[in-house]
This record gives sequence, C-alpha cells and structure tokens, in this order.
Amino acid sequence: MSEKRTEISSVGEFGLIDRIHAHFPITNANTQKGIGDDAAILRGGDESILVSTDMLLEGVHFDLSYMPLQHLGYKAVAVNVSDIAAMNARPEQIVISLAISNRFSVEAVDALYEGIRAACTNYNIDLVGGDTSASVSGLVISITAIGRAAKEKIATRGGAKANDIICVTGDLGAAYMGLQVLEREKQVFLTNPEMQPDLERYEYLVGRQLKPEARMDIIHELADKNCMPTSMIDISDGLASELLHLSKNSGLGVKIFEEKIPIDNLTYETAIEFKLDPLTCAFNGGEDYELLFTISPADFEKLKNHPDIHFIGHMHDNANQNVMISKQQTVVPISAQGWNHFKGERIE
Amino acid sequence: MSEKRTEISSVGEFGLIDRIHAHFPITNANTQKGIGDDAAILRGGDESILVSTDMLLEGVHFDLSYMPLQHLGYKAVAVNVSDIAAMNARPEQIVISLAISNRFSVEAVDALYEGIRAACTNYNIDLVGGDTSASVSGLVISITAIGRAAKEKIATRGGAKANDIICVTGDLGAAYMGLQVLEREKQVFLTNPEMQPDLERYEYLVGRQLKPEARMDIIHELADKNCMPTSMIDISDGLASELLHLSKNSGLGVKIFEEKIPIDNLTYETAIEFKLDPLTCAFNGGEDYELLFTISPADFEKLKNHPDIHFIGHMHDNANQNVMISKQQTVVPISAQGWNHFKGERIE
Repeated sequence: MSEKRTEISSVGEFGLIDRIHAHFPITNANTQKGIGDDAAILRGGDESILVSTDMLLEGVHFDLSYMPLQHLGYKAVAVNVSDIAAMNARPEQIVISLAISNRFSVEAVDALYEGIRAACTNYNIDLVGGDTSASVSGLVISITAIGRAAKEKIATRGGAKANDIICVTGDLGAAYMGLQVLEREKQVFLTNPEMQPDLERYEYLVGRQLKPEARMDIIHELADKNCMPTSMIDISDGLASELLHLSKNSGLGVKIFEEKIPIDNLTYETAIEFKLDPLTCAFNGGEDYELLFTISPADFEKLKNHPDIHFIGHMHDNANQNVMISKQQTVVPISAQGWNHFKGERIE
Repeated sequence: MSEKRTEISSVGEFGLIDRIHAHFPITNANTQKGIGDDAAILRGGDESILVSTDMLLEGVHFDLSYMPLQHLGYKAVAVNVSDIAAMNARPEQIVISLAISNRFSVEAVDALYEGIRAACTNYNIDLVGGDTSASVSGLVISITAIGRAAKEKIATRGGAKANDIICVTGDLGAAYMGLQVLEREKQVFLTNPEMQPDLERYEYLVGRQLKPEARMDIIHELADKNCMPTSMIDISDGLASELLHLSKNSGLGVKIFEEKIPIDNLTYETAIEFKLDPLTCAFNGGEDYELLFTISPADFEKLKNHPDIHFIGHMHDNANQNVMISKQQTVVPISAQGWNHFKGERIE
C-alpha cells in the first residue's frame, strides 16, 4: 500500500488529542465544557456534573511484579478522583470496565475489588456500573468518575488572573523516585531471586508510587476556609507540564521560584543516590496527584499558615514567559517533557 | 503458595458481577440505581442521568483483519448508545479511553475517530473527554455514555406486570451469522491469499456484525406514540439471556412463541448452510443490539401496525416458568448460554 503512514510518536499524545478535539464540536445544550480540562462539565440541575475517565494497562501503567492488586484497585480509583478534585468538585460515582485474562483467579479479582472498595469508602463514592470481559493478554482497568459541584465553585485550568498566587500541595517527585526504587529492586530480584528487596528505607517513596491519594482533603479545606481557587489542575504528568497547561488556558505566564518547590528530603537524597537531579524529578516525574492551583492575593491570608500548601510563584501578563527563578537567581525557561519522554537530564 | 485459586471460568461473568455487587452498597443520595441494569441512574435536576460503560478489546471483541477501523469506531459508540436507549433515554455525551500500540499510525487513529464522529453525529452526541495511552499489544477502546430522561420515562429491566406483551425490534441472529461468514472468509483467505472474499451475498449479515445501529429510532417513536414500555433491555448477549433478565428483575415468568421470533430469511438460510439451528442463533447469538421490551396490553393498539416491532409473547405470574411454545406446540424451557458459551447446539 502506498497510503501515507505517520507515526504516533511524531505527533505525541497531545498532538493526537488536538487532532481529535478539532473534529468534535459541541452540540448538546447540556454540555457546558467538553475536552480540554481535568473533567468535562455537564448541566445537572442546581449543580454541575463533572465527568472524567482514565485507563490503566498492565505493562504500561503498572507492573504486577511489584504492584499488589489491592493497591492497584485503590490507585485506579484515586487517579480518577484526583481529576474530579482538580475541578474543585466532589466525586460521587464511578463505573469500572475491567478486562482480565485467565491468568487471574477469582481471588485475584477479589483483591483488586478490595482495593477499589477501600477507595470508594475513603472517598465516599458509589460503584454504579461496569463491564467485565476476557483479555487475551494483560489486565486493563478503565474507570469513569462522576462528580458534582455548584456551578460557581468549579475551578477550570483557565481562570487565573495576573498576580494570582501559584500554590502546590504536598511534595513532588516522590512517586517517580518510588518507581525508580521498585524498578531497581525488581532487577536485583531477577538477577538473584534470593536477595530480599530493600524497600524499608524507601517506604515513603514506594508508598507514593503504589498508593497515591487524591487530595480531597484539600478540596474540603478550601471550601471550609471559603477560599475559591481561580484555576486548578492535578499533577499527574509533572509540575512543568501542568504549569504550562495553566499558562496556556489562562493566557498568562507563570513565574515560580526554585527554592519554593516542595521536595521531600528522602526524595532529594534518593535522587542523588540514583544520580538524578531532584528538581527534574519534581518537574517531570509525574504521578504525584497533588493539586496545583492559583488563588487571588486577597485569599492568601486564609491559606498562609496551611502546613501542606506551598506558594511557589505567581501568574503574570506575558503568556510567552513561563520561567523559574533558580536558587542562583538565574531565569530558567520551563518546558514540559512529560512522563514518557522523561530521560533524567538536568533542566538547569 | 498454598493460597486458594478459583478459576474465573468456574463462576462466570455474571457470578463475578454478583460477587462484586454484594460488596458495594450505595451511600450517595444522588445515586438512584447502581449496578444491575443497562445503565446506572443518577439524580440530575428535573431529569435523571443515565451512565453506561463498555470496553472493546482487540482479539476478544473484534478482529482487525476484517473489521475496518471506521466501523469499529462507529460500533464502539453504538453499543454504548444501545445501553442508554434500553433505559428509554437519549444519549448526550461520551468519554473515550483509547490504548494503541505503535503498530497503529496517526492515519489509523484518524480512521477510528472518523467512525466515532459519524456515530456522534448520527446519535447527536458530544465527545466530551477521554484518555489516550500506549498499549503493549492490541487496541483497547473503553467508552462511557451519559444520557438523560425524565424520571417517569425511564424503563428498567424490572417494571413488567403479568400479561404485559413482550416486544422485540428488528430481527435476530443476523450479527452472529455475519461473524460466522467473516470467520470463514478469513480462514479461506489465510489458506489461499489469492481467493477473493465472497461477501456480497451476505452483505446484510456482515453489515449487522460490523456496523450495528442502536435503536434510538424506536425510542423516539415510542415517545411520539406516547407509549411507555413497562420494562426494557437491549439484546447484546442473545434473546434467551435478556428474557431471563426481564423475568428475574420483574419477578415474573416469560412465555414466548417460536413462530413469532423475527429471523431474517438470509439469516435462516445461512444458518442452514453453516449447519446451525437458526433459532439457536437468534436465541444465543447476541450482538443484535435490538430492543426487547414489554408494554401494557392497553398500549398494544398504538404499536400493532409498526412494521419493525414484533410481539413474541407475554409475561405471566409464575417466575419459575420461562418457556417457549414451539411450532409443534411443545413447551421448551428457556435457558441462557450467553455469547461465550455458544456451542451451536439445538435447544429444541
């Protein structure tokens, strides 16, 4: 055949999404916002309804040689909840499609659902439907989460104003370092099956990789403090990529300060041990599922003493200038590498 | 390890779903109905919101050697729309998760989305979100559809009354025979690649397999005629399995008549050619995506002249007696085999 063949790698995931987006105009009055944020927004009476979906595939998103099925079930729910949280909304229902090969037993499926159930209980979510089918190879889990929020409370990626303060929760890069530790121990085990894995020292990092939590606690606290984020996104691909999403969607630039970026000591030390730049891990590691959001300067007082919210910079008028001020006071442009393209280079 | 291992095949898909269902009680006030029907029902203001999900996997649900990607995209949407239709509701939005390996080009993804777009246009649906990721092996498409209906218009599987008339749309067994034809031609092609496939004669059957339509036309006509189905389900696994769902959920028995079951002439002839019982194909073939529903006898007048609705029997008080009256006036118990277990035996 002489038909044209373009490799997917040449356009990338975002290129593919843009191609698709352009051909699907919105026609239903009940669709308030379609593709392009953490969740779609639909009309739902007094409140709006948020819809988000994520698929996890064995061999791509998880490795069952170190990911216990219970944790996998929990994580599959948590990553979807994180998308709903990132709209400043609360999740209420999920539907799950599961494909399993005969390599898995009923007990294995029970373990997976035990994790799913623990997450549903923790986040107060109802499992309301699904689809179970055979798979010829690995395990596939696809979850769609449905959430709600009052219309005026929804935080998109695009609402920030110049001078709004950029906030990030928790710490960054730990989930990525947890993955590095797990991969190393797997290689050690494959080389010498009698070696016991040395994970205790790295417990925090491994936990961040295997059992991430969606930051619903922050969503509830923001509501309690009557603090409305002007824009918000969850950190799934890495801080750099998410900052650029906020910049693009708000039509503003971001300016952040290296010294303000929250990196846990263990993440820092382990990165050095692995000969990786800790800052790169925070910027491009991904899978942190922390929240990145902006607030009006007027709201700063409400959050300034929060132990788990860090103020890393601010929005400014020049949309083409997305920069980090390094500890040496140099101006470093922010560029996204994304999880798949992560190669561990220093970005300074 | 001495842990217990139970094979999934020993409990089956429905056994697995029952196991899961029992451990997930509903806790949110906005969840009106969870697992156990064609779609979940959520509160949504004046109307209710319906949510349904389906996953299609290469090598399990489709074979790309005879399924063009455009048709696959169309079908993936149609099967989800069919679930929403089966609640007597209208679909409005879908989210799509797609996993693709580097075996696929950008042009292949475009072809897939062209089919998805054609279905969205035809059924008036907005694509509002999704997730695209790499796959290590085959293509996986997971779609969640969201629909709406006035609360009092929703038809579940469980609302039928004794003496309600059992209706079925279109004809049955054709999609299954289409699959048999495609599988045979594939084998011929594999044996002798110079042989041209002989599909023209079987065009209707092959079309029913490759490009099924959800019966939204029927949903709109029922509304126009002010006819409210008392229960409804779509025929995805086969007539027998769906009749038993209506029986179980309404707590009533079904009694149908062999001579009333709609089987297209070509389906009949092709089944005979393949040495299969045409009735078994209609009962257990599946993938017809026609609607099976019940109406009050008072509504019969409204539908009796409809060219594409067939009245195959009625509901009765004895929930343990699900039977077909054969052309020879013998009483045949109805048992479900489901798609996966279909072995082509005669059930008479």
